[in-house]
Amino acid sequence: MPELRKDPITGRWVIISTDRARRPSDFAPETVSISRSRFCPFCPGNEDKTPPEVLAYANEALRGQARWSTRVVPNKFPALRVEGELDRQGEGLYDRMNGVGAHEVVIESPDHEATIATMDEAKVAEIIWAFRDRVLDLKKDRRLRYMMLFKNHGAGAGASLEHPHSQIIALPIVPKRVQEEIDGARRYYEFKERCVYCDILRQEARDDERVVIRTEEFLTLCPFAARFPFETWIVPQRHESHFETISEREVYNLSWTLKTILRKMDKVLERPAFNLMIHTAPAQEPASSHYHWHIEIIPKLTRVAGFEWGTGFFINPTPPEEAARFLRE
Amino acid sequence: MPELRKDPITGRWVIISTDRARRPSDFAPETVSISRSRFCPFCPGNEDKTPPEVLAYANEALRGQARWSTRVVPNKFPALRVEGELDRQGEGLYDRMNGVGAHEVVIESPDHEATIATMDEAKVAEIIWAFRDRVLDLKKDRRLRYMMLFKNHGAGAGASLEHPHSQIIALPIVPKRVQEEIDGARRYYEFKERCVYCDILRQEARDDERVVIRTEEFLTLCPFAARFPFETWIVPQRHESHFETISEREVYNLSWTLKTILRKMDKVLERPAFNLMIHTAPAQEPASSHYHWHIEIIPKLTRVAGFEWGTGFFINPTPPEEAARFLRE
Repeated sequence: MPELRKDPITGRWVIISTDRARRPSDFAPETVSISRSRFCPFCPGNEDKTPPEVLAYANEALRGQARWSTRVVPNKFPALRVEGELDRQGEGLYDRMNGVGAHEVVIESPDHEATIATMDEAKVAEIIWAFRDRVLDLKKDRRLRYMMLFKNHGAGAGASLEHPHSQIIALPIVPKRVQEEIDGARRYYEFKERCVYCDILRQEARDDERVVIRTEEFLTLCPFAARFPFETWIVPQRHESHFETISEREVYNLSWTLKTILRKMDKVLERPAFNLMIHTAPAQEPASSHYHWHIEIIPKLTRVAGFEWGTGFFINPTPPEEAARFLRE
Repeated sequence: MPELRKDPITGRWVIISTDRARRPSDFAPETVSISRSRFCPFCPGNEDKTPPEVLAYANEALRGQARWSTRVVPNKFPALRVEGELDRQGEGLYDRMNGVGAHEVVIESPDHEATIATMDEAKVAEIIWAFRDRVLDLKKDRRLRYMMLFKNHGAGAGASLEHPHSQIIALPIVPKRVQEEIDGARRYYEFKERCVYCDILRQEARDDERVVIRTEEFLTLCPFAARFPFETWIVPQRHESHFETISEREVYNLSWTLKTILRKMDKVLERPAFNLMIHTAPAQEPASSHYHWHIEIIPKLTRVAGFEWGTGFFINPTPPEEAARFLRE
């Protein structure tokens, strides 16, 4: 019998098909393979093909290959621009605003063929530090209310360049889905006087059915009301609303965790395309007791029927308990 | 300068890239082409390969080819089942419910290669009648609170069979995005004492910038805060919250409108895959002054970065004014 499950944070119901559960081999994912064939603007030597960098690290160990190990540059084709005033205007019943914001690219490595799953841990840690440092810098601009950190890996997940990179979009508004998560977490807090994510951590650790990786610093799990097959969250054990408060210990632990879960996905799902998003609290708001930053990873396994966008209604053919079992093994 | 626009119903902001607006030729849509190669369970003669029909029309003109012109059958692999009680259960902080509901397939024509764009108007009208009749029947079951009517056209839009068909999912809950639209429309009504969709109809008809087709019964437009390039809505001129109240005159007008807009999309966008959704009010609720049923059509033109699901944040590279201009011509 199929089952309807409710996400305890947002209140969204999803259908979990328990009858004809799909195993990894039932999907035909597009395996991401990297072929250094065409000109790549992110490779060392082509630094003049991107706008000037806003951040660069030069790790000792990498000096031989390139003069940088991680670079952050403004997106050459930005969705938003930093210049200009935040001008809000009405037009009959409609509202519009200037597209003020920032759009940056984190070039994760000089190595065109590296992936987080195959990089060494120190390299992954460096990328996390770059995220942290850019958020700390961008939030000084009080117009920027939300920093979206995300990674599209593989063409199937929307990446237009294959050189390893992530993106940062700094927005003058808080996106609706993020606000919804925050509002849901606040309602739970008002009712229970506890953080819903902290409660999830406790219940998942006890049940152990949906846990994939457990460390002192992070719990990696397939969520109870997963929208997508093999959807996976990485939740810090320590309650903190803002990603940028991450500690040194957590950075190193997260870099191991990230590598491990992506290596597991590569193995179980044959190097799938994926989207990775950091969910964090709005930049200009103080630390909150109800929201808890975390990472969501969604491998692209199915050619999703776009009607989910229109209705917010998801049918997931792989119960998260099964997904977790495959990823644990 | 890119622009942020707010959807007047849901309050969702989207980025409209006005700088580097993408024209139809900038997309590389996967053209949907139909090739009758493999065995098709929806073709005449294979009626025993589907569960027994719950509705069938036999149009005079079609009697030669098949004993039916439109057939509705339960989905052989349903996401939900009609049997059983609506059993709600808790499990720690989680909630689950039996997957009670219905999942039906509307086989739109005996002709494997027909599409709505190429069918004759009377045929399209018959499909709309089938939708209406199934909703009227399903809503007798008081457990079913929402009927989702949708069509995935082409593999790129999630269709697994190419024979022309649509789907009906009857749910024991109201999906979150639908509820959000209803709540947004209610807030507008409380504030203005007018329906937001009726106001949109008036403003769009006057501005004329985003209108694609205008008839006495329906306005077809690219919405102000379109999430996707060439996203198109068909809104009935007469205020009515529930689709199933559609009049005979409206059915015939809608069949012409649907054919016309899909033919235009086929021409301008090279037979794209698309999703079509009917947005209507919850089945068990009385007619409301604030909600207004309508159709949304989303051609699949870009390989969307899945992070939109995670954040609810959309970047649309084609301003709806441009999209409407291309579709009008």
